[in-house]
Amino acid sequence: MAIVLGSNRYGKAETRLVRVTRAGDTHALIDLNVSVALSGELAATHLTGDNAGVLPTDTMKNTVYAFAREHGVGSPEEFGLLLARHFVATQPQVTGAVVGLESFGWERLGPHSFRRAGDFVRTATVIVSPAGEQVVSGLKDLVLLNSTASEFHGYPRDRYTTLPETTERILSTAVDARWRHRSTAADWDESFEGAKDAMVNAFVNTYSYSLQQTLFSMGSRVLDSRSEIAEIRLALPNKHHYLVDLSPFELENPNEVFIAGDRPYGLIEGTVTRDDVPPAAMEWYL
Amino acid sequence: MAIVLGSNRYGKAETRLVRVTRAGDTHALIDLNVSVALSGELAATHLTGDNAGVLPTDTMKNTVYAFAREHGVGSPEEFGLLLARHFVATQPQVTGAVVGLESFGWERLGPHSFRRAGDFVRTATVIVSPAGEQVVSGLKDLVLLNSTASEFHGYPRDRYTTLPETTERILSTAVDARWRHRSTAADWDESFEGAKDAMVNAFVNTYSYSLQQTLFSMGSRVLDSRSEIAEIRLALPNKHHYLVDLSPFELENPNEVFIAGDRPYGLIEGTVTRDDVPPAAMEWYL
Amino acid sequence: MAIVLGSNRYGKAETRLVRVTRAGDTHALIDLNVSVALSGELAATHLTGDNAGVLPTDTMKNTVYAFAREHGVGSPEEFGLLLARHFVATQPQVTGAVVGLESFGWERLGPHSFRRAGDFVRTATVIVSPAGEQVVSGLKDLVLLNSTASEFHGYPRDRYTTLPETTERILSTAVDARWRHRSTAADWDESFEGAKDAMVNAFVNTYSYSLQQTLFSMGSRVLDSRSEIAEIRLALPNKHHYLVDLSPFELENPNEVFIAGDRPYGLIEGTVTRDDVPPAAMEWYL
Amino acid sequence: MAIVLGSNRYGKAETRLVRVTRAGDTHALIDLNVSVALSGELAATHLTGDNAGVLPTDTMKNTVYAFAREHGVGSPEEFGLLLARHFVATQPQVTGAVVGLESFGWERLGPHSFRRAGDFVRTATVIVSPAGEQVVSGLKDLVLLNSTASEFHGYPRDRYTTLPETTERILSTAVDARWRHRSTAADWDESFEGAKDAMVNAFVNTYSYSLQQTLFSMGSRVLDSRSEIAEIRLALPNKHHYLVDLSPFELENPNEVFIAGDRPYGLIEGTVTRDDVPPAAMEWYL
Repeated sequence: MAIVLGSNRYGKAETRLVRVTRAGDTHALIDLNVSVALSGELAATHLTGDNAGVLPTDTMKNTVYAFAREHGVGSPEEFGLLLARHFVATQPQVTGAVVGLESFGWERLGPHSFRRAGDFVRTATVIVSPAGEQVVSGLKDLVLLNSTASEFHGYPRDRYTTLPETTERILSTAVDARWRHRSTAADWDESFEGAKDAMVNAFVNTYSYSLQQTLFSMGSRVLDSRSEIAEIRLALPNKHHYLVDLSPFELENPNEVFIAGDRPYGLIEGTVTRDDVPPAAMEWYL
Repeated sequence: MAIVLGSNRYGKAETRLVRVTRAGDTHALIDLNVSVALSGELAATHLTGDNAGVLPTDTMKNTVYAFAREHGVGSPEEFGLLLARHFVATQPQVTGAVVGLESFGWERLGPHSFRRAGDFVRTATVIVSPAGEQVVSGLKDLVLLNSTASEFHGYPRDRYTTLPETTERILSTAVDARWRHRSTAADWDESFEGAKDAMVNAFVNTYSYSLQQTLFSMGSRVLDSRSEIAEIRLALPNKHHYLVDLSPFELENPNEVFIAGDRPYGLIEGTVTRDDVPPAAMEWYL
Repeated sequence: MAIVLGSNRYGKAETRLVRVTRAGDTHALIDLNVSVALSGELAATHLTGDNAGVLPTDTMKNTVYAFAREHGVGSPEEFGLLLARHFVATQPQVTGAVVGLESFGWERLGPHSFRRAGDFVRTATVIVSPAGEQVVSGLKDLVLLNSTASEFHGYPRDRYTTLPETTERILSTAVDARWRHRSTAADWDESFEGAKDAMVNAFVNTYSYSLQQTLFSMGSRVLDSRSEIAEIRLALPNKHHYLVDLSPFELENPNEVFIAGDRPYGLIEGTVTRDDVPPAAMEWYL
Repeated sequence: MAIVLGSNRYGKAETRLVRVTRAGDTHALIDLNVSVALSGELAATHLTGDNAGVLPTDTMKNTVYAFAREHGVGSPEEFGLLLARHFVATQPQVTGAVVGLESFGWERLGPHSFRRAGDFVRTATVIVSPAGEQVVSGLKDLVLLNSTASEFHGYPRDRYTTLPETTERILSTAVDARWRHRSTAADWDESFEGAKDAMVNAFVNTYSYSLQQTLFSMGSRVLDSRSEIAEIRLALPNKHHYLVDLSPFELENPNEVFIAGDRPYGLIEGTVTRDDVPPAAMEWYL
């Protein structure tokens, strides 16, 4: 038997890029966190330290900044495609590239003034590999809450079950969603807004008997309204709000006063897909 | 000589309270992080472990939840005053109370649906002590950016100075501000909105030769427009955005492509006050 | 075409358990963060909100605490196996369980006194599924540094390459490693210590021409010395230390004064495996 | 009435410095996070943007790195004194300097190999002002736990008190301590080790009826054993460990199984001082 090198990749993570563009006196702002990972014929550096095939990660960082100037930065998906294709096209030993992007939102306050939005982070992952190209869009840290219209009952009970059934609870989650596109061409910004709004609307309008039900509702609403999206994966923490027992103080608590818990939390994860799309040629949900 | 107990206090930190109120089918949501610290005749527990004067911190937590039901929760300042006065009034050995509150904003999505705002955290600190009562309002984590209208030059140079002077830079900060009120009665929500808007407007409209100048502009705008506020203290990190040198790639960079730096950062701290207000009777900026 | 439910799971994340055991006056301490995820026949709750197959995540939490009393807590791997098998065995609709554990180290200060170690977190992931059982051990946040014996040169250069070659640099990383065991029976604590020591020794003793080379050295040393381990995956951030240019101050810097950078950082990821082990029956590196 | 500038300061925060020294083949490592704040005649830049008195914060950063080469880095206290005195001595408009330092510990693994310790962070704050010079040493994030020898009872009860009295509980805290030295000359490393050991020993050996009692014991043990220290201030979170109620599962829980809580937590703050030291000439505990 022998010890051998398995799958591997390397890159530069978290290059922080701010790009200002000017239309006369009115500026626009793009704020990205860009991570690049390359794979290919990289055995030599692992086995002998021969770096003839190892484009420095410092060069990847430089490329991010130079491309921002040379090509501009449109949507995260577009900028990611540009970068991923570049590395695969120009480095013969590189056969795969994954570019992950976080995009931070800013609200306009004036022609050249902005306030960071903070309500969620938009994400994109672009994969270029021998199996093809894949664009995945997403968002994270979008915290939603319904103060009613949520029940939880009818579940199995075992020796360790003490949870009382309820027909009235707070339902709250921090949406972490990624969705795989059918193709590598789309109106990325319009698609993103549509998917986000579909998820939010589904959360708001679903009378929920479980967070799983809400998850499926959110995912199917996205697929229903966005034909360019092949499938979507959601990871939804159940941010528990515990009703406080005020009876020791001779007070009732008619669903008014809650403890917002930190840990533990429920975690509901699921994919919503279509029965007519081919499976992804490569792992897309990381 | 002898070893003696000096100043001391104790309390319960970070009690997380969510309060739902209902006006028919339309719900409202208040989301607070409440910290209580009490001081007074507390030597015995330090010296001998005699707890006869030590109201449990668990009781403070219970009081936060019970008061949220009994009295409702208006503004953070009002709820803080209620709590601080309660502990001083009901525990004979307690002579001082500090209640610190963080208030997390939620945007309405529907009659009982909300999205966490995330653009800043509103704060309040209420102090009740033998020297009187004091209300301090504030906010933190409000990230602002001007993509131009900022210069920095004319500074002294010594042996260790390499910074080039500039007439064009990005100015960005995360506002951390606290302001002391003249009295313990105000329309707290209206006052908060006014102070916040004054700071944001001053940031946007100041052509800046230093972040100190912007700080003073922000503080004086607040005092100018809000007569109920005695003084304000700001701590403004200078979130550096470094212009990328693209000349190795034979590219110009006309103030377009920047690195958003993490550390180190500048830190500008200052108080703006009035010459006709008495100094605070107690330490108010912690 | 139809919208359908894809892969899914749910559970309780981050149940914080501290277990004290007593051998006379001498206590021992185990400190775990336990996350459970179950999969199986869970379509109903997604599609209709019927929870007949949804064991509450609150019950999972209770089970963690009750099992800690009923069965004690040995190694993280053993406790994870106990929990994962329990859920699959007792819930007919559950066909898979993943139990992830973080174990926090404490150093003994006295018979019942301890100091939290803080130099790394030990991890374990136990998977029980229709494809079999799998135990994965690991650690994270172990920060290592060599102040010399690291070079980097011989790499390809393109238009965007500015990095100077070096024969002397600091090499530092925060080890994040997971290794798959051949079987579900082992002396887990002894195996963990052996694997950790092998990695540390390889880091210390490898004269490095790339972090990839160090990674392969660490992984192969583990496999070489631990026959019970089938393969290992490492994710090694390159925690850059930049040599400060002191020439503006007419000072040399003979590899003495460095900036410890935050972002960006290199990220080297790789698997080291054996050519005689069957591939994993299930995804094991999450 | 007029709006006026109050107290203010500015500086560079969190300059990350790693300093390697070589004694033949054996290297030593110092790892610091340095923050500088200057005060003095700074009104002009606030009021008019005139920066003639504003040494750039970039220069402060450069000075940290250059001094590390020119003067070497001994203890954090010594390096802080060097920097603080430099800025006050060389900048005529600067009358005060505060240098805060965090020092990260590394354990030796070999002649040039190290592992980050992670069990606590050593701190120092050096203040140079018209009122004199002050050195404050400290540490933070040192997590200690006694699994018995802690009681809590005899406290007052009011309407909101539900806590049961206990003669057996876990006592755990994360020590955050700062101590003021009598003079600006000391064997800083020996003093630090002595103070740390005194605190740890007091925590271990105090049979505790309240965390306040433990705090006073820790502080007085430091003053008792270290004559060079004038006073000490401790902030001790009470990291609650809740005994799990296992009675629903027909199990006893004889102080074995605990929930490690995140929030809320108790917070005990106190100063231990001497009756024969003059009060500090300046605020020292920030």
